[in-house]
Amino acid sequence: MSSSKIKVGVLGATGAVGQRFVQMLQGHPWFEISALCASERSAGKRYADACNWNLRGDMPAHLRDMVLLECEPGFDAELVFSALPSESATAIEQRFAAAGYGVCSNSRNHRYDADVPLLIPEVNPEHLGLLEIQKQRRGWSGFIVTNPNCSTTHLISALHPLHVRFGVSKVFVVTMQAVSGAGYPGVSSMDILDNIVPYISGEEEKMEQKEPQKLLGTFDGTQVRYADLVLSAHCNRVPVRNGHLEAVSVEFKDKPAQEEILQAWAEYQPLAQRLRLPSAPQPAVIYLAAQDRPQPRLDRLAGTVPGMATVVGRLRPDPLFHYKFLVLGHNTIRGAAGGSLLNAELIVAQGYLGSTAAALARSLEVA
Amino acid sequence: MSSSKIKVGVLGATGAVGQRFVQMLQGHPWFEISALCASERSAGKRYADACNWNLRGDMPAHLRDMVLLECEPGFDAELVFSALPSESATAIEQRFAAAGYGVCSNSRNHRYDADVPLLIPEVNPEHLGLLEIQKQRRGWSGFIVTNPNCSTTHLISALHPLHVRFGVSKVFVVTMQAVSGAGYPGVSSMDILDNIVPYISGEEEKMEQKEPQKLLGTFDGTQVRYADLVLSAHCNRVPVRNGHLEAVSVEFKDKPAQEEILQAWAEYQPLAQRLRLPSAPQPAVIYLAAQDRPQPRLDRLAGTVPGMATVVGRLRPDPLFHYKFLVLGHNTIRGAAGGSLLNAELIVAQGYLGSTAAALARSLEVA
Amino acid sequence: MSSSKIKVGVLGATGAVGQRFVQMLQGHPWFEISALCASERSAGKRYADACNWNLRGDMPAHLRDMVLLECEPGFDAELVFSALPSESATAIEQRFAAAGYGVCSNSRNHRYDADVPLLIPEVNPEHLGLLEIQKQRRGWSGFIVTNPNCSTTHLISALHPLHVRFGVSKVFVVTMQAVSGAGYPGVSSMDILDNIVPYISGEEEKMEQKEPQKLLGTFDGTQVRYADLVLSAHCNRVPVRNGHLEAVSVEFKDKPAQEEILQAWAEYQPLAQRLRLPSAPQPAVIYLAAQDRPQPRLDRLAGTVPGMATVVGRLRPDPLFHYKFLVLGHNTIRGAAGGSLLNAELIVAQGYLGSTAAALARSLEVA
Amino acid sequence: MSSSKIKVGVLGATGAVGQRFVQMLQGHPWFEISALCASERSAGKRYADACNWNLRGDMPAHLRDMVLLECEPGFDAELVFSALPSESATAIEQRFAAAGYGVCSNSRNHRYDADVPLLIPEVNPEHLGLLEIQKQRRGWSGFIVTNPNCSTTHLISALHPLHVRFGVSKVFVVTMQAVSGAGYPGVSSMDILDNIVPYISGEEEKMEQKEPQKLLGTFDGTQVRYADLVLSAHCNRVPVRNGHLEAVSVEFKDKPAQEEILQAWAEYQPLAQRLRLPSAPQPAVIYLAAQDRPQPRLDRLAGTVPGMATVVGRLRPDPLFHYKFLVLGHNTIRGAAGGSLLNAELIVAQGYLGSTAAALARSLEVA
Repeated sequence: MSSSKIKVGVLGATGAVGQRFVQMLQGHPWFEISALCASERSAGKRYADACNWNLRGDMPAHLRDMVLLECEPGFDAELVFSALPSESATAIEQRFAAAGYGVCSNSRNHRYDADVPLLIPEVNPEHLGLLEIQKQRRGWSGFIVTNPNCSTTHLISALHPLHVRFGVSKVFVVTMQAVSGAGYPGVSSMDILDNIVPYISGEEEKMEQKEPQKLLGTFDGTQVRYADLVLSAHCNRVPVRNGHLEAVSVEFKDKPAQEEILQAWAEYQPLAQRLRLPSAPQPAVIYLAAQDRPQPRLDRLAGTVPGMATVVGRLRPDPLFHYKFLVLGHNTIRGAAGGSLLNAELIVAQGYLGSTAAALARSLEVA
Repeated sequence: MSSSKIKVGVLGATGAVGQRFVQMLQGHPWFEISALCASERSAGKRYADACNWNLRGDMPAHLRDMVLLECEPGFDAELVFSALPSESATAIEQRFAAAGYGVCSNSRNHRYDADVPLLIPEVNPEHLGLLEIQKQRRGWSGFIVTNPNCSTTHLISALHPLHVRFGVSKVFVVTMQAVSGAGYPGVSSMDILDNIVPYISGEEEKMEQKEPQKLLGTFDGTQVRYADLVLSAHCNRVPVRNGHLEAVSVEFKDKPAQEEILQAWAEYQPLAQRLRLPSAPQPAVIYLAAQDRPQPRLDRLAGTVPGMATVVGRLRPDPLFHYKFLVLGHNTIRGAAGGSLLNAELIVAQGYLGSTAAALARSLEVA
Repeated sequence: MSSSKIKVGVLGATGAVGQRFVQMLQGHPWFEISALCASERSAGKRYADACNWNLRGDMPAHLRDMVLLECEPGFDAELVFSALPSESATAIEQRFAAAGYGVCSNSRNHRYDADVPLLIPEVNPEHLGLLEIQKQRRGWSGFIVTNPNCSTTHLISALHPLHVRFGVSKVFVVTMQAVSGAGYPGVSSMDILDNIVPYISGEEEKMEQKEPQKLLGTFDGTQVRYADLVLSAHCNRVPVRNGHLEAVSVEFKDKPAQEEILQAWAEYQPLAQRLRLPSAPQPAVIYLAAQDRPQPRLDRLAGTVPGMATVVGRLRPDPLFHYKFLVLGHNTIRGAAGGSLLNAELIVAQGYLGSTAAALARSLEVA
Repeated sequence: MSSSKIKVGVLGATGAVGQRFVQMLQGHPWFEISALCASERSAGKRYADACNWNLRGDMPAHLRDMVLLECEPGFDAELVFSALPSESATAIEQRFAAAGYGVCSNSRNHRYDADVPLLIPEVNPEHLGLLEIQKQRRGWSGFIVTNPNCSTTHLISALHPLHVRFGVSKVFVVTMQAVSGAGYPGVSSMDILDNIVPYISGEEEKMEQKEPQKLLGTFDGTQVRYADLVLSAHCNRVPVRNGHLEAVSVEFKDKPAQEEILQAWAEYQPLAQRLRLPSAPQPAVIYLAAQDRPQPRLDRLAGTVPGMATVVGRLRPDPLFHYKFLVLGHNTIRGAAGGSLLNAELIVAQGYLGSTAAALARSLEVA
């Protein structure tokens, strides 16, 4: 019954990522939307009036008449999903955390804070241990958890099973990123039809220095010790609607046989999958054997939870590194709203949201 | 006056590359088309009837009524440009060379023969010294000269000025290649709209092992000693009509300062440019300073001879190699027909085509 | 249980439309595939080996090992779906009909035969009365039923509810057709990137003279008397993957009020929907009120059975005709394989396939 | 010599249309830019700093350092080209006209004023007679002349030669318009990749009611009497960068033979072409005989002055009207900046700019 679900709010509900949150929360077994929040300009309007719905399929009918709130604490919810733009995310998210809400944020603002988990449930669930430290240090009753950039998410998702077995030391990556990664209206059609734009502001820095080392780092009970891998990234925008494709070359501390890499992916069964979190794809990483895959249009929705899996292919030796292969993932699902949502599911399942939520989660899981 | 020009034929004149030869030879100061050759099926037809002209601008009016010949020696020409498919190029090109024609071939069939120059006029003009050896060994009165693959051409054109100064040792390259590289009809729209295909048959092998080492190799008077650089290539097809974009990371034997690389490109004045060959762009390599360039649509025709220059940009340090940057070049102009044409111009200017041609070239050059 | 389903074969199972048949038949409540047939060249191979699967999602796992048969009667099935190319469809389809199979064909070859139904279940179900005449005249124990061209299908689906109330007399239509309508490889990317091709061979003739008049014609017990509407069609190919969009202006025998047209669409409940055929969308025609819809990417899969509905929008007065509006429909689902499939469902439900099948259909329907 | 040219300014010089003005005025035989004007925000900056140059080829070198002025009269010029947005065009253009400048405007604001010529030099040069009336009525020493919307321009350019011979009475047109028609950034890539948007705000009204009737109207010495043709327009945005394609069906007062229409286009030699205005293409209307032309990518730059001609094709009988055919034209060249420029050339040649300018024009023409 609906009333037994965990109430959640969406901050920035009218934008591209906000719409994805709304879409993915529709019919969610654990969560139900109790509040949609937007900018001052939109607050007070019906969701259907303020939001230019841009996704396939209609806006959920029962939310059309929901009146948009301002992004301020006060409404009935245990958790909020943040799709706020960077300009306003910091202050608003902190107010919600201070007021006792769990904040699952897709914004980049708090990603690199030492006491804020940068989380991929399959990769570093133990980093949630930072939450106690965060709450204590900041005096918050709630908390903030972030998910990484869309390109980093799928790269690290593909590398993690290899890293735990063989130790990734060097990564060369060239991304071919879909236009939806820039939001709406985002990339002008004048810039991208019959073209590639070989520059995305801030993206190479995020992939080289800021996110992978934290994601693959180890939590020692008090802090995350960064992994020491070195990455080089070239980031490009391509005329594809959804799905980031990445050409990757890797060097390991211990060079595995090619077969061992395939095995590492095939046997990968991280916590999120073992917990059967509702949005966790089974498997988390899909290897395609065809010589010309993965391809964005064909494979961005592959797997049991469309858009949530990471797809790899074309594993082969590399003349300069050990191996090269391709990584593909959906950027606005797993790479944005879906990443936050899976984070929230892990938070609930691990009991970080209060005993009621955890009990619910356990009971739902068994059922 | 037209009658003083060097007569040339085009083999495979109805296809995509053949059309480019015809287009680029229109109004050429040194060459005039005396024969258009095609498959048995098309031979005997008017060019306008057999050829589905696919380029912007009309088919040259004076060639519309030219009757297509079979690809057999016998017509009046000193030189032939070959746009033949690989299935038939070997035997036909050899017959023409044996019959005394100079063959400037865009086909890959003879590229890797030890006695056949794989030529980029700016890069390795001295490899034309192989022609004497080739004629002697094969007993031919004519000869075959080839140009490299479209992706290799621009990569090596960008690297050559750096190689001669600092010694390139390692190259990592990810290509984003235009659909025209696959010919016509080539890539199905069903495969490439809203998509990327991360596989091009045979392309990575050509870029890693077959062409760069020969192009940057040294001719010792009897053979080409291959350069010892190591390359890793990922090749992708993208929904762009013309222009291959390449993300490149490089390591040198002697690491230069970033400024020295810019200087090497700026000061690059190779033989083809000093000879003022008609199709040689001035400069050969163009560096764009804007942070988001080069882009295929905006820059593929940059420079004094549209489509013949190599465009570079975004030079910056690389965390794993010394530097990274972008390379862009037009694949069906410099990367195919235009490459063969510039080869032919060098051949004429260097006197390999007979004394008449050389005299003509000299006189034209002075005028 | 699977064994109680009606066995069907797919002729031309490896091509684009054949793959759609296979995809849409997966999990079908009435039909199960007992044979996949292909050209001589592919017969004898495993389906997974002979077929370059081009649709999203994988080839149905249980069919991967099915060995392809030649397109000859003899296997166990009551019905075959034909995705044969026009070059071979006539003879093969006739052999199957003669041998007792029901043939639901997407090929154009028999569409205009006087004794062959050209069928859209919502529009002219009574034309199935031709089957008795067809069997008698041709001495067949089986039969052939066809579905119209993809552009005609959606145009007439949108017009039919208006035609029965107000009498359509004149139709002006300009199509913007997706590349998938030309099959695979079909339209070259060289022809359609950054371009429109304002010509599709044979398409305007089909839409103007051959199909609408028969579809909207009346079956008088012995023949179909063609409707007397006059159409003008301009057909264009556009760089869209799926979904034909059509700009339509209409004149009626009795000019309705604008509101009456909306009402006619809203109240449209034809036989196929009343019978609750498994592939019949509810409703058959969807009107979108937004001023900029329908759009191919957003709306081609609208409705309860993705790709089977016809979507209309932007109804407004026309200065030259009575009204103008837009029509959108999925061309390879309802416009091809899905059209044949729904035809087959109507055939079963109406008892044209033998008493067993009809009984099954009735029982399934009740359940 | 440069100093003998007519000095012109560009209002709104940093935007998409403004850049086209700058590009087309480079090397113009009659005009030279003496001032570039922009919004308050950009005024005072160098053109190279304030303008994100978006066209192929570089910004003209000699203008890079020109300091942008505000859009206020006072600088040395006889004529200004206006690329102002509608929000600000009215007041600014009127101030310039009042101050004695000739204003050639691409904005829509004054197009429908009774005393302002809506001008296509080939179509209605006699409408310049309105200028005396305009100056008198408004008390201006300068004047305003406008050019029509991009879609209307090419439609009427194609119809005019037929209208003068056979009288066009009814026109049905469906446009497929390039994204550049919406300016920069204009259409979001999220809206148009793999899609069509069948709505362009205000466009159908302009094509049906506002512009064609005035353009084809007759100037009786005091006013323009509107032509009485009736049009129906459906306007669509398609994923094409440049070039509007229009499917047109026409009915005439006197139905000509098909051959007579071809003849009317072939013999079309309007005033602008007879005057040999520098930007007037020869011929003005190009008929392509191939069955699948014109196409935007192949034909948008056809003719002697790239982007200035109107290209027609596929003339054939129409079942509902007399004939149907296709019209293609470049929307940001002839359809915007180039239209204003040709208007200015006609104004100079007809002596409306003062005796000096006219003398110059005559002398240049003879030379």
